[in-house]
Order: sequence, then C-alpha cells, then structure tokens
Amino acid sequence: MSGAAGETGGAGGLRLLVLNPNISESVTALIEAQARRSMRPDTRLTMRTAAAGVAYIETRFEAMLGAHAAAGMAAESCAGHDAVIVAAFGDPGVAALREALPVPVVGLTDAALSTACLLGQRFSIIAISQRIQAWYREVVRGCGLEGRLAGIRALNRPLSAIDGIQEEHADALVALAEAAVREDGADVLVLAGAPLAGLARSVAHRLPVPAVDGVDCAVRQAELLASLGARRARAGSFAPPPVKPNRGLSPACAALLAGAAGAPGAAAPR
Amino acid sequence: MSGAAGETGGAGGLRLLVLNPNISESVTALIEAQARRSMRPDTRLTMRTAAAGVAYIETRFEAMLGAHAAAGMAAESCAGHDAVIVAAFGDPGVAALREALPVPVVGLTDAALSTACLLGQRFSIIAISQRIQAWYREVVRGCGLEGRLAGIRALNRPLSAIDGIQEEHADALVALAEAAVREDGADVLVLAGAPLAGLARSVAHRLPVPAVDGVDCAVRQAELLASLGARRARAGSFAPPPVKPNRGLSPACAALLAGAAGAPGAAAPR
Amino acid sequence: MSGAAGETGGAGGLRLLVLNPNISESVTALIEAQARRSMRPDTRLTMRTAAAGVAYIETRFEAMLGAHAAAGMAAESCAGHDAVIVAAFGDPGVAALREALPVPVVGLTDAALSTACLLGQRFSIIAISQRIQAWYREVVRGCGLEGRLAGIRALNRPLSAIDGIQEEHADALVALAEAAVREDGADVLVLAGAPLAGLARSVAHRLPVPAVDGVDCAVRQAELLASLGARRARAGSFAPPPVKPNRGLSPACAALLAGAAGAPGAAAPR
Amino acid sequence: MSGAAGETGGAGGLRLLVLNPNISESVTALIEAQARRSMRPDTRLTMRTAAAGVAYIETRFEAMLGAHAAAGMAAESCAGHDAVIVAAFGDPGVAALREALPVPVVGLTDAALSTACLLGQRFSIIAISQRIQAWYREVVRGCGLEGRLAGIRALNRPLSAIDGIQEEHADALVALAEAAVREDGADVLVLAGAPLAGLARSVAHRLPVPAVDGVDCAVRQAELLASLGARRARAGSFAPPPVKPNRGLSPACAALLAGAAGAPGAAAPR
Amino acid sequence: MSGAAGETGGAGGLRLLVLNPNISESVTALIEAQARRSMRPDTRLTMRTAAAGVAYIETRFEAMLGAHAAAGMAAESCAGHDAVIVAAFGDPGVAALREALPVPVVGLTDAALSTACLLGQRFSIIAISQRIQAWYREVVRGCGLEGRLAGIRALNRPLSAIDGIQEEHADALVALAEAAVREDGADVLVLAGAPLAGLARSVAHRLPVPAVDGVDCAVRQAELLASLGARRARAGSFAPPPVKPNRGLSPACAALLAGAAGAPGAAAPR
Amino acid sequence: MSGAAGETGGAGGLRLLVLNPNISESVTALIEAQARRSMRPDTRLTMRTAAAGVAYIETRFEAMLGAHAAAGMAAESCAGHDAVIVAAFGDPGVAALREALPVPVVGLTDAALSTACLLGQRFSIIAISQRIQAWYREVVRGCGLEGRLAGIRALNRPLSAIDGIQEEHADALVALAEAAVREDGADVLVLAGAPLAGLARSVAHRLPVPAVDGVDCAVRQAELLASLGARRARAGSFAPPPVKPNRGLSPACAALLAGAAGAPGAAAPR
Repeated sequence: MSGAAGETGGAGGLRLLVLNPNISESVTALIEAQARRSMRPDTRLTMRTAAAGVAYIETRFEAMLGAHAAAGMAAESCAGHDAVIVAAFGDPGVAALREALPVPVVGLTDAALSTACLLGQRFSIIAISQRIQAWYREVVRGCGLEGRLAGIRALNRPLSAIDGIQEEHADALVALAEAAVREDGADVLVLAGAPLAGLARSVAHRLPVPAVDGVDCAVRQAELLASLGARRARAGSFAPPPVKPNRGLSPACAALLAGAAGAPGAAAPR
Repeated sequence: MSGAAGETGGAGGLRLLVLNPNISESVTALIEAQARRSMRPDTRLTMRTAAAGVAYIETRFEAMLGAHAAAGMAAESCAGHDAVIVAAFGDPGVAALREALPVPVVGLTDAALSTACLLGQRFSIIAISQRIQAWYREVVRGCGLEGRLAGIRALNRPLSAIDGIQEEHADALVALAEAAVREDGADVLVLAGAPLAGLARSVAHRLPVPAVDGVDCAVRQAELLASLGARRARAGSFAPPPVKPNRGLSPACAALLAGAAGAPGAAAPR
Repeated sequence: MSGAAGETGGAGGLRLLVLNPNISESVTALIEAQARRSMRPDTRLTMRTAAAGVAYIETRFEAMLGAHAAAGMAAESCAGHDAVIVAAFGDPGVAALREALPVPVVGLTDAALSTACLLGQRFSIIAISQRIQAWYREVVRGCGLEGRLAGIRALNRPLSAIDGIQEEHADALVALAEAAVREDGADVLVLAGAPLAGLARSVAHRLPVPAVDGVDCAVRQAELLASLGARRARAGSFAPPPVKPNRGLSPACAALLAGAAGAPGAAAPR
Repeated sequence: MSGAAGETGGAGGLRLLVLNPNISESVTALIEAQARRSMRPDTRLTMRTAAAGVAYIETRFEAMLGAHAAAGMAAESCAGHDAVIVAAFGDPGVAALREALPVPVVGLTDAALSTACLLGQRFSIIAISQRIQAWYREVVRGCGLEGRLAGIRALNRPLSAIDGIQEEHADALVALAEAAVREDGADVLVLAGAPLAGLARSVAHRLPVPAVDGVDCAVRQAELLASLGARRARAGSFAPPPVKPNRGLSPACAALLAGAAGAPGAAAPR
Repeated sequence: MSGAAGETGGAGGLRLLVLNPNISESVTALIEAQARRSMRPDTRLTMRTAAAGVAYIETRFEAMLGAHAAAGMAAESCAGHDAVIVAAFGDPGVAALREALPVPVVGLTDAALSTACLLGQRFSIIAISQRIQAWYREVVRGCGLEGRLAGIRALNRPLSAIDGIQEEHADALVALAEAAVREDGADVLVLAGAPLAGLARSVAHRLPVPAVDGVDCAVRQAELLASLGARRARAGSFAPPPVKPNRGLSPACAALLAGAAGAPGAAAPR
Repeated sequence: MSGAAGETGGAGGLRLLVLNPNISESVTALIEAQARRSMRPDTRLTMRTAAAGVAYIETRFEAMLGAHAAAGMAAESCAGHDAVIVAAFGDPGVAALREALPVPVVGLTDAALSTACLLGQRFSIIAISQRIQAWYREVVRGCGLEGRLAGIRALNRPLSAIDGIQEEHADALVALAEAAVREDGADVLVLAGAPLAGLARSVAHRLPVPAVDGVDCAVRQAELLASLGARRARAGSFAPPPVKPNRGLSPACAALLAGAAGAPGAAAPR
C-alpha cells in the first residue's frame, strides 16, 4: 500500500476521501483536524497521504507530481466514497479526476474561491511562500476568476517547518491580510494552503473582512455536492475518457480508466 | 404588512429568510416546495413575496424594482435569521444587501454558478424567455464568470402561465439543454429562474451532463455560509454603508442603515 | 409631490430632465449651476431632487436606493422632455430607464467616459471618498471599459460637507490628479461625482492632461443624443419591458410600464 | 497643393477640418452632405481629400496609407480650425494626430462607438465588404470595446461603385441589420464607413433598434469636444512628441512636430 | 529501461531530446520522420516513447498521465541534450519541465502558436477528435492567446487508427480548414496533434492560408532557443524548485530535483 | 534613392531585408552588428535606413511615420529577399506589410514576444524612455499578449545619444530588469528597442532570468519563417489587398499593390 490511509469518523452519513498529494503526514494530520471541525457529525473521512512526491507544493513541477499522486490514490481508494477532496491549494489533479471518477471532486482552491465569491466581490489570497504566487495566479486564471482576484500576498521569510507555520507566522499572516484589504481592496480573504488549515477560524477576530480556509470550504462544498445528487456527465468534456489502448499504468488506474469508460455511473441523490 | 409572509419548518437549526422579489405568490410556493426538498431537516424557512413589483423579472428595469422590493423585505424581516436568499435568478439587490445585512446573502445566480463551477469548467444557462438573456449575460459578467459561460439558450415561445412553465415546456427545455452541450460545449447546465425550481431534479435523467437548480443551490449554499461563521466585513466595500443623512426611507430601511453602520455585527459560528 | 422640482431655462430648444437621485438640494443647485454653464443657450432644464434616499451615494446599497428614486422621478416627470440625465456618478438606474423611457437617458459616468475616450486612450477617475472606489470600479467594468481605466484615486479624509468639497479639497484633488498621470499613466482625468461639478473647469489650468466633468459631459451628450433623433428600440434588450401583471407600483411607474410597452415611441429628429 | 480643399459653411461658429484619407472625391461629397445635415448652423467645414492613397480602405496596408495621408493633410490645413475629423471608419491616423495637433481629433469609429455606447449596451457594425471585417475588429479592440461588440456583419457581394452603395445595397444592409439584432443581440447599430454616410437616417424607420452613422456622430462629437474647451495634454502619452532630429518630412509635418513640441497650446473654451 | 529510445542523426550540431508522452511507437515514428524533415542537417535527435500512458491524449486525465511520463523520460534522458521537445499537442508537462531542466523545453502547442502568431493575427486549430477540443481551448487560454484564437474545428468521426489519420481523413481535414478560414476568420491554420505531423506540408497547396505543423515548429523553435543561449532562470517562477524533502520518486527524478536546485546551470551560447 | 542601402553577407543561404524605419544610421549599424552575430553563417543581409522620419520612435505619431517609411523601403527593396524585418520595437508597418509582401515579415516586438513566450510565462519589457511605455503597452495588447505582460519599466533620464544608450545606461537598465523580476514577477526580460541591440547578450550574466533582444529574435525568427516555406495567404485578412483605384503612391508602392493583388505568390519551401 502506498501512503498512510485510515478511515475515521462516524458510522453513517457521507463518506469523503481526502487526499494529501504531498508526503507530509503532519500536514495530513492538520488537514484531518480541520476537516473534523468542518464536517457534519455523521460524515466519515478517509485520509490518504501521497507515497511519492514532495513535502509541499510551490511550483508547477511539484504540482505535476502531486496531480499524479492524487490520481493514483483516488484510483485505489475512491470506491465506496461519496466525494473526493484533493487537499492542496492549487488543486493538483482535480480537473483530471473530475473526468475519471464517478463522484464529485473538489480542491482547496476551487472550493475556497466558490465560497469566497458568495461573501464579497474581490478576494485576496494569503500564501505561505513567495515562490508559490506565480502558480496560484495561474490556478486562479484557470478558474476564470482573475477578474475577482484583488491580489496575492505571501510570507517572504524561510519556513522552518511546514506544519508549524500558523504558530510561527500568525502575526505576519495577519499583517498581510490587513494590507490586502487596505491596499488591494480585498473584500474576502482566502488563507491558502493546507498548512494554514484552521487559521481562518483562529485569527478571524483579528481580520477586517471575512476569511475562508481551503480545507473548511472543501469539506463543506464536498458534502454539499455529494448531497446534491448531480448526475455524472455522459457527454461533454467531463464525460469519462474514451476507451483506448494503455500500458504501464497502476492496476487501479487502469481499472479506473476501463471502468470509467465502460460504465459511466451516477451519484445517487441523498 | 407588505407581501405574504409565513414562517415554516422545524423548531431548531438554521433560519433562512427567502425573498421572492416578484409579486407571484404561486412562484413563491414553487420556491418553497423546492427549498423544502433541498434544506436540512432542521432548517426553518421564512418566505416573503414582494408587495410591489412585477410578475417575473426579464429586464433591467424590472430587476431594479425587484432589488428595491428585496431590500425592503430584508430590512423588515431579517432579524432572527441566519442567512437571506433573494430567490430570483439575476440576483436583484444581492450585492446591496450583502453590504447592509449582518448575515450572509445569496442569490439564485451566484449560488448556482458557484456550485456549477465545482462540477465542470463551462456552464450554460437555460432560460425561460428570449428577452431575459441580455440581462443574464450582464449578471454573469458582473460575477466575473464570462470566461466560463458556454452560452445562454432560451425558450422562444409565449409563456401562458409563469407557474406552469416546467410542465408546459419540459421537452423544449431539455432540447435546449442538449443543444447547449452538443453545440456550445457546456459541461454543466444551470436551469435558471425561480419558475424552473425543481426542474433540474425532475429531468436530470434526460440530461447528458450535471444540471443545477438555482433554488436548490441557494438553499444549500446559504446553509453552508451560515454554518461557516464567517465574520461580517468591518472594512472594504462590503462593510456597512457609512452613516449619513437620509430621508423618505421606510422605517425598517432607515433602521437597517442606522443599525448596520452603528453596530457591525458578526454571525456567530455554528 | 416628491422632491424639489422646477423648470428653468429658455423658451425654445431642447428640454432636459435632470434627476439628482440623492436628497441633497445643495448638490442639486451645484449640478444646475454647472448644467447652465454647459448647455446650449436655448436648452431648458427641469431639476428634480430625490424625495427618498441618502445624502450621497458611495455604496451598492445606496446606489440601489438612488436607482429606484431616479426611476420614480423619471416616471413622474419625463413627459415633455427630450432627454433625461441621472446626475450621479455611477449611473444609478440609467440602464433600467433606457429600457423604459421614450427618450435618451445618460448618466454622469457613461457620458464622462464616452467623452474621455475621445480625448485619450486611458482615463483615471478622481473620487471623493475611499469607500466609493469599489463601486466605481464595478460601474466602469459594467461599461466594458476596464481596459481603458488607468486607475481610481480618492480623497482619504473626512468630508465636512458634501457641497463644499471643491473648495475644501481642491489642492488634494489636484495632487491626486497629478499622481494619476505620473504614476498610473492617465491620458485623461474624470473628476467624478456630482459634488465636483464644475471643478474640471476651475482647476483645468493646474492639470497636466485634459479633464472632464460628469455634469458637463452629461448635459452635452444628452443634447447631442436628443438632436440625433435616434429611434427608440423596438427589439433587443432595450425595447420596452413586456407587458405583464404588476402591483404596488406608483401610478406614474405603472403608467410608464403600461405606456412604454403599449406604444413604443420615437424621438423625433431635430 | 495636394488634394481637393474647399472651405464651406457659415461665417461664425466652430471651424471643423474634415479629412477624407482616401482619394475618392465622390465620397468626400457624400461626407460633406451628411456633415452639413449634422452640424450646427454656424459651424464651418473645410473638406480635404487625400492626394495619395486608395479609393477606400479595407485592409491594414491601406489604413497605413490613409493614416499618412491624413497626417499630411492635417499638418497642412489644421491651422485655424477648432477640431479635426478623420472621415474614414477605422480611424486611420487619429491616435497619432491626437498627439500632434493642438485641437481635438475624432474618427468615424471612435465617435460612433462613443455615441452608440450611450444608446444601449452592445452594438453591431454593419460593413460594406467581407474583407474589411478583420480590420474593424482590431479597431474595436484597440478602443477596448470588444466586450460591447455584438458582432460585425458585412455585404458579401461585389461593389460596383463605392459612392452608390447605399442605393444599390440598401435592402441587403437592412437585412444585415435585422440579423444583427435578432441573432447577435445588438442593441444599437453602427452603419460603418464613409460610403454609408446618411444611411442611418434614411433607413432608420426600417430598423428595429437605434442606428448611428459615423459622419453624423463625428461631426457632433467634434463640435462637443471643441466647445468643451478641454486643455491639451502637457504630460502623458498624448502630450506632443518630444523634439528630436528628423529629416525628409513635408515642411508642414516638420513644422507640426517642431511647433507641437515647442509650444503645446490649449484650445480656448467656447 | 522504460519506453523506446534511440539516438539518431548527424555527428555534430544541436542535440534534441524528443519525448512522445504517449505509448504509440508508430506515432513516435511519424514524429521522427517529420522532425528529420524539419531539423538542420547537423542536428541530432534522441527519440523517447512513454513506457506508461495511453495511445493518445484527448482529456485532462490523459494529459496528466502524459505530463508525468514526460517528466520521467526527461529526468532520465536530458543529460547531454541542448533542448527538449514534448511531442504532444497540449504540451503536457512543458511548464513543469521548464522549471526543472537546465535547457529550453518546448511543446507542440506553444511552438506552433508562437510561430503562427508571426504569420497572421488569428489562428484556428484543426484537431483530430471532438473530445479533444475542450482541453485544447484550455491550453490556448493557459498560453494567454485566447484573443487570437479564431476557433477550433475537429473531425467528428471514429478514428480507425491513430497513425493513419492523415491518409484516411485528409479531405475532411482540408474541409475543416477551409471552413475555419471562411466562417471563423482564421488567418493561419494550426494542424494539431502529433498524428498530423507532416500534414501541413503535404496539403499546403490546398489550403487558403498558411498552415503550421506542431512537430515542424517545435523542432525549429527548439533549435532557435538552443542556439540563442538564453540563461537559465535563477529567480522568478521558472527558477529550479526549492530544495525540500521528497520520497518515492524515481532516482532520475529525485536527482533532477536535487541537481536542479543545487546547481542552476546555464545553456552555453552556440 | 531614399536612405542608405547596402547588401552585405555571404554568397548563399537566406536573404533578409532589414528595415530601420528611423533615420539614424548609427542605429542601423548597431542593428546590423547584432544581426550578424545572430544570423546563420550563410544568411545575407540588406540593410536600409529610412529616408524620411525621426531619430527614434517613442509615440504613435512617430510610429505612423515609421510605418510609412518601412512600407516604402519594402516596396522598393523586397524583391529577391526571403523575409523582411522591420527593425524597430513596436513593429511599425509590420501588419500592413504582412498583407502586401510575398514573404514573411517580422518586427522586433512580435519576434521577441513569440520567443519570450517559449522561455517563461510572463515577460517584462525594459525600455529606453518613459514616453515610449504607453505605445509599447498598446502594441503588446495588439498582439493579444497583455495577459502575459508582467510590466514595462523604463529609463527616466535624458538620453544624450541614441546610439550610446547601452554603454551610458547599462547599470540603470540592469537595475530596472532586477526590479521587474523581483517586484513585477517577470519570468523573462525583453530588452526593447533597436538601440539596445546586443545588450541582452552583454549583460546576460548579470540578469536573474533569461533575457531576449529584439534584433536577435527577429533575425532568428525570420530565418525560421523563411525556411518553413509557409504558403502566402490567398484568403482571409492577410491575403493581398483587393485591386482598386489608387493615386499619388510611389511607383514601387503602386507596383506592390498591383503585383500583390494580381499574382499572390508563394514562398518556396527551403
């Protein structure tokens, strides 16, 4: 088995598969803790951590690794779940998985932005590293939401540990948020990246505008989509990929492609 | 008292104020029926129908009337609610109310588009009249989502009754939806307008891609936002309007402006 | 009768209805003074001040109030006029009235931007308050002119009186204008808001690029449109709204909707 | 002297220099006839026809020739005028002349689009040849107005004579206009090209939405700008070009560059 | 060793690594044949075919697989090469590899679009399947070139063999190209997809506008970039990814990340 | 004969016509020196300097003069060449000549931007004067590449001599480049303007990201296009302009229009 997996949560309700496309199990734990605060009481979580990849994603190359890892984990573990969350900001692999899986798939970015757009007109993203900004900008543009992006502001100091950012840099992150509102005209703040899971809640009282958290939004939007019961696409660009020769794929991935194409399923309304 | 009001629903949970900015009580009933199918079991609804306005909104002038009516109803009735829904596609008054009310406000359009964006890349809107399309296009552009709009298609026949459209025109609406997928490249369908409340569910099995319904999405996103506990803006463009002289407003509206400015509140996290 | 009205001006020529959608009669006087400097000698003005609303518009909520007030005044008073001006920057109600009235309708923003676009490539807006900027940005985007907006700069100090801004803050406004040219690359300046009526002329010699004034442009463009004799739309999204049931509207507004739909008129060429 | 020139019109009022950047004197006559119908009674016209160029502009290469011809004529003849009109759709040379001349400069396109934007939200251009469409599209984009362009439709038949298009093709042009409204969603029609001067007026009663004519709008907007008295730019991208070595230019053009740079003038308010 | 590899070509000159991110060796042969026609006489090619993946890429999921395969092949084989080509339209992995490799990287799409933009203003893409269009549209938008895209047209019939498309469907492809020029206004045609390598040349005489071929452009642009001698980024979003913990990667990929970060190299000018 | 001309270079290979649309022969020498460093060994150059125009182009008016001069030189001298380069940043006349000439035409801007887009996602332009920035911004927008423009930064000091800028201002130019990377997020630098020809190479080691040079890119892309053998357009907006009456043109220009239209040629593949 690749990566850490463990099903946790209640005995009924929706089952969410939460994929950390990075190798940091401490970040998985952070994600899980926030997901438990966000989910409905009877939702059940399956957490997975990537077996292959890097500690956290800041670049296009790392996002490519994360997308591949997320797809592999989803292929192995999606059976029996009602929705899948790719728990990294930037949504590596989300659009790809949305084609191949029979259930809704959300990323931290698309969930957070969809939610932020209901709370104000323009949002700013607060990020954990300078390097990550270019990739985030491209992701927002891929979502077609560049017209609502007030800006991206990021920490410009070395990160001593990826899982302690919130504690170490809380004041700096709040200062970035204040500047985003005052200078960039942000109406809503998106505190970005799985390592910041939970921060929106813990510093909310210090922020001048509403703030959202990727994990919080992703869990809630995944529950919303799973209970919506929307049908899976049978046509258009999110129908399952056409059947065609393949080789060298993991058995789970090959089965996903075969099964997806052979039997386009439908999420049952709940 | 202006318009029809009545609190309905369970004894606990979230309280949603649902405003029909038009005068059609039969449409209010349609909205309520779909809202009850969508809401959590313990959510409670307050329904309001505009005392002043038109039967349904197709134009900018009518939307202006609807926005004013929605604001008046919200000012009168929002106390004690956790979120407010403006139940007309096009979201008349939503951005205005988002400034003035202490709780989240959603419209059918912004809720449906935020949800649709999590189900695919490009969406098409299926509408009930030719005339309504220009206004919808402007609303989508106001949301900054024109890059994800595959197109708008609309019925081109006279509507004999606004509350019987679903039954009378179901086949024509399905045909428009199929054309939107086949010719315009839609990944998701948005069945637009309160008079189509419930249609996404009843014809889902006939549609080639997932479809969403404005009322369904608005109720679910309003519940999501209310339970998120995001703080109200104290700065930026959605902070309460500054205190300044006014005259001639309804007492409720004047109180809203005074109270909003005086005591920017915060929705308690739930 | 709601609000202050009074016909003034010469005995022949065009008749303009000028609507102040705010309640500030001192601002109406400022608008009238500038309109008299701008108009042709034989143009006649009817000035109206909103009976209901706020002292000046800075937010979406206040703009919604202003749009409704403008519509009510237009419905009551447009008969016998050749064009209507909504004399607030941001153009509350202009698009709505353009559907419903048989004569041309202009706002301070669309008139000023159309004029500015003939004087240079990129314009900057100089505004009277920080809060107003987000709304102005949305209005420019609604005009489709975001590609020509160099920026918006605004006073960041309290306004002691809305009708004395020009005198009190002239130096600060000129400094903002200079920064807009030097730092933002503005080719033309738009001095925004009815309270700045006349400023473009009084400080023109201190400004490095051409400047336009909303009232000045609105009066001149309204005269131009009225004399152009363009036909009223019989089709498309600015044709009169379709006839449909309504209730609770003012008699003038109901008559406007009935008459507009029943007898789409045509401005006679002059 | 290059080209045909002749001052015509009344003894007082504004003096407009109207430049036909093409060599067709019959089109100059058409332009003049429409300009006389559009101008104020006391406006005086100076008409010029290009000495070098082509019969009418459909391509970028021909527009380049027209821009150069317009600049040459303007340099020779602008003295003593209050505004300059480049009387070809596509505005060859207008932005260049706006830098170099001490008075306002308008083209048929920017005048028509600025006017059309006050009459509705989206405009369509009706053009005289298939080939011309690509260039027009680029011009609209250069104006930053692509978001308001509903479409361009053009005659697809050979033109037997450039000055008889209106008579020969009136029915076809009206059919294009109707299709633009019905299929493309145009709110306003722009009948494009100097050879169509006057058509908007003669077929107005047959068109479903308001229509504007480039010459009509250019004359009226030129009068408006001339009487506005806006200052000439002393800074920014429309200030006179910096003084620098030149050679081989016509004496008038060299004098214009020298004079423009040496003594940036100001149009006196009228 | 994964996939087919073989160095071919002359003894001097530039060395290009050409990666087919799909598993179709017959397509690799087609790519190689066209690359040999395009390359300079002394260029040497190394061809690689993906060991894992699908027969050809039409969807986002398949593109994710291709990106990962391309990265793995590049990590294994890039040493000793002057530039790398990812030989699939859609450019899977190109942006990621551009961060990680010390030499220029081009894809078929970005090379073809950069070239097409020098031959005209608007291009159309001719594609081999309906399904592939949505992904291509997103790729063009990722390049920021949506404003120059006249359209995408695609075969709508089953492909009996991926390597025989040119012969089987040449007439249909030419008909699509003609429609793209006549109806969509294309100035240049991009014949997209590795399976069409060589077609632009073989049908050029039948096409009304210039046509480019992805492989042809990629080889030539790769040679151009390799000989340009541009330095590798030491800062910005294409600098090597920062050093950080990783696990589970192939040895070559891990070495690439380590080496890339440790020793940002520079392509020597040639 | 107007302007300085001289064929230089080897006896075989491609023949490039390089047009300096300005009158500065010292800049022509700078262009030629860099072109010789960039071209293939057997490429032959014909250099031309404008007989009429200004010392260097910073404004739209000067660009109009340059476009006309470039067209005149091209008409006189293009026979016998395989490609034409307009050697001024801003590409005066390039689109026009692309219609009229039987061989590929490139400008410094479109060549540099097409190349830069293959080296990173966002580019910044480093320019020699403040005034030039507005025009450059419009040129980038005309290329549809505004979404990839990180910014434009320019020297803000007087230029003592146009041909000595590199030596005099190298440090200032490097500082602008560093700021473009650090503050604007540039991935690639475009050192703009013929007077900077060669600078990208001489300061490359001091720059944090890859830099390109307009002349270098134009020569290489012209060679690429000439050897590509793309057919000339017979349809669409870059087909030769239609035959129509003209007068007053130079004999070469008249012949070009006649010949172009009469015998649309095709560049032979090489």
